[in-house]
Amino acid sequence: MVQKPTKNRNGLLLGPDPGDARLSQEVDGLDQDGKAVRTRVVTEKPLTLYLNRQEIITMMTIGDYPDLLAIGYLLNQNMLRADDDVVDVEYDDELDVVVVRTGRETDYEDKLQKKVRTSGCAQGTVFGDVMEGFDTISLNPDALLKTSWLYALTKAINTAPSLYLEAGAIHGCVLCQKDRPLVYMEDVGRHNAVDKIAGWMFMNNVEPHDKIFYTTGRLTSEMVIKTAMMGIPILVSRSGFTAWGVDLARRVGLTLIGRARGKRFVALSGQDRIVFDTDPEIVADEETRHFRKGGSKR
Amino acid sequence: MVQKPTKNRNGLLLGPDPGDARLSQEVDGLDQDGKAVRTRVVTEKPLTLYLNRQEIITMMTIGDYPDLLAIGYLLNQNMLRADDDVVDVEYDDELDVVVVRTGRETDYEDKLQKKVRTSGCAQGTVFGDVMEGFDTISLNPDALLKTSWLYALTKAINTAPSLYLEAGAIHGCVLCQKDRPLVYMEDVGRHNAVDKIAGWMFMNNVEPHDKIFYTTGRLTSEMVIKTAMMGIPILVSRSGFTAWGVDLARRVGLTLIGRARGKRFVALSGQDRIVFDTDPEIVADEETRHFRKGGSKR
Repeated sequence: MVQKPTKNRNGLLLGPDPGDARLSQEVDGLDQDGKAVRTRVVTEKPLTLYLNRQEIITMMTIGDYPDLLAIGYLLNQNMLRADDDVVDVEYDDELDVVVVRTGRETDYEDKLQKKVRTSGCAQGTVFGDVMEGFDTISLNPDALLKTSWLYALTKAINTAPSLYLEAGAIHGCVLCQKDRPLVYMEDVGRHNAVDKIAGWMFMNNVEPHDKIFYTTGRLTSEMVIKTAMMGIPILVSRSGFTAWGVDLARRVGLTLIGRARGKRFVALSGQDRIVFDTDPEIVADEETRHFRKGGSKR
Repeated sequence: MVQKPTKNRNGLLLGPDPGDARLSQEVDGLDQDGKAVRTRVVTEKPLTLYLNRQEIITMMTIGDYPDLLAIGYLLNQNMLRADDDVVDVEYDDELDVVVVRTGRETDYEDKLQKKVRTSGCAQGTVFGDVMEGFDTISLNPDALLKTSWLYALTKAINTAPSLYLEAGAIHGCVLCQKDRPLVYMEDVGRHNAVDKIAGWMFMNNVEPHDKIFYTTGRLTSEMVIKTAMMGIPILVSRSGFTAWGVDLARRVGLTLIGRARGKRFVALSGQDRIVFDTDPEIVADEETRHFRKGGSKR
C-alpha cells in the first residue's frame, strides 16, 4: 500500500512520480476558444491519521507517501519525539487511514483540546504547539550556501519532472545538500510536502545541520518555524516573505532567502552564511513556464 | 480600530490599501549581487476570534478588516446563520482579539470538539462542517460569464494597486459583477480573503446569484465549497485545479474556470454559462510581473 522510495529519479533519492496514475487524472473541458480540451489535474483526498489508538487529524493530501506524511506531521506537532521508536505504520488506501504505532504510550487529548483553542487555518493549527521550544533552537553557524549551489539547485528543481509541470496546482519542497537536490516532495498542501520530508529525515536518520531546504511556497511564520524545528539552517523559496516569517528567522539565526527566480534572490536573515561565488549576470533567467508561485519579478 | 470601507478605490467599493503602514513593512537585506537592499514584506499576525463568550480560533492574517474576517469565517463555518442578528463586533488591535456578539445565544462546543477530529490544515479544518448541506445548494442556472467580462476583470484586477504588487506573498480574492470588480480583499491566508468577502456580503445584504468570484489561489475542494456555499455560481482563478475541486464543482453545477492568464483559460465545470464573445487573439498576454500564483503557461 505505502509507496516505496524510488532511487535515482534524476539523481534524487526520492522524488515526484508524475507517471503515477493515482496522483493526477485527465478531465475534459473547454479552452478560451471554446474548443474541447483534455487536461490533467492533481489528486486531492482526505487522509485520517491515528497515533496508536488516538485519531489526530484528517489532512487533504495528494496521497503519496502517507507513511512519511504521518510521521513528519507528528514530529512537527511535537507528538513524536526524536527518540521515539516507530514500531509500525499501517496505511489503508481504501479507508484513507494511516496508523502510526510507537513503543511509547501516547495520549495527546490535552494537545488536541488546546488545538481547538488556536486552530482554524494551517498556520493556526500548528502554532500553539510548534512555538514551544522555538527560542532554544540552535542552527549550525558554519553551514554555507554558495550562490553557485543556489543557482544549480533552482535550475535542477525547476527542470525535474514533477506533478507541477504535468498538472500544476501543487507545492513542492526539496531537501538539498550543497548543489544537489536529495528529496523532492510535492503536495496540494505545502505543509504536507514539508512534513513528508521531515518524515523521510526521521526514518533515515538524516543529519539536518548541513542541509538546505527549498520550497515553492511563501516564507510565512509556519514555514520558518518548521524548518528551524527540523534543525535545517538555510531556507530558500522562489516566493516572497511575510514580516513575521522574517522576524522569526532572525530570532533563531535561520538563513532566509526568498524571491529566488533565475538570477535574482533576496536574503533577509542569516546573510553571513551566503558565499557569493557566482556572477549573477552569467545565470540565465527562467523560462516563463517556471514563473509559478510568487512568480513576480519583485 | 476597525478599518472602515473606503469608496472609489479604482472604482472598487472596497479594495486593498497598499499605503496602510500596518499592512506591510520595510526590511533590510542583500540581493543576488551581495548589495544591500531594502524591500517591503507583508504583515502576518494572529487574530483570535470570539463568538459571544466562546473562543473559536486564532487565525494568521494581515490584519485588515478583522470585523469582516470574523463574520465571514463564522458564516463559512456555519456558526453564523443568514438570519442571525449581529449585535456588535468589537476589535482590540492591541490584544489582537475580535469579538462577534449575536442576538441568538450560541454554543459551538460540540462543533469545536468535532473539528479536532477532522482538522489539521486549512482544508481539513473547515471540512467536517462545510460539507453539511453542500448537495442541497442551488446555483443560478441563468448566470452568465461573457469572455469579454473575464478579460476585463483579470486585467483590472492585475493592474489594481495591491499589496501583492507592493510586497508579494499575499493572496487576493475579488467579488465581481459582469465586467466590474466590486470588492478586492487580500490576505496572507487565501481562506481569510474569501471569508472577508463573505463577511462584506453578509453585512451589506449582497445578492450572490449574479456575481462572479475571482481568486489568485488554486481551485481546491475548500475554495469550491466556500464559493458554492456563498451562493456564487461562477468561480475564476489564475491558478490550477485539484481533481476533487473539479468533482465538487460539477456536483453542484458551479462554473469553474482556472489558469486564467492573459488570453488563456480552461473551464472544467458549468461551461454552459460561458458566452464566447471575444476573439482571444485580440487579448494582450500578461506582463511577466503578473505571472504569480500558478503562473505557468499550462
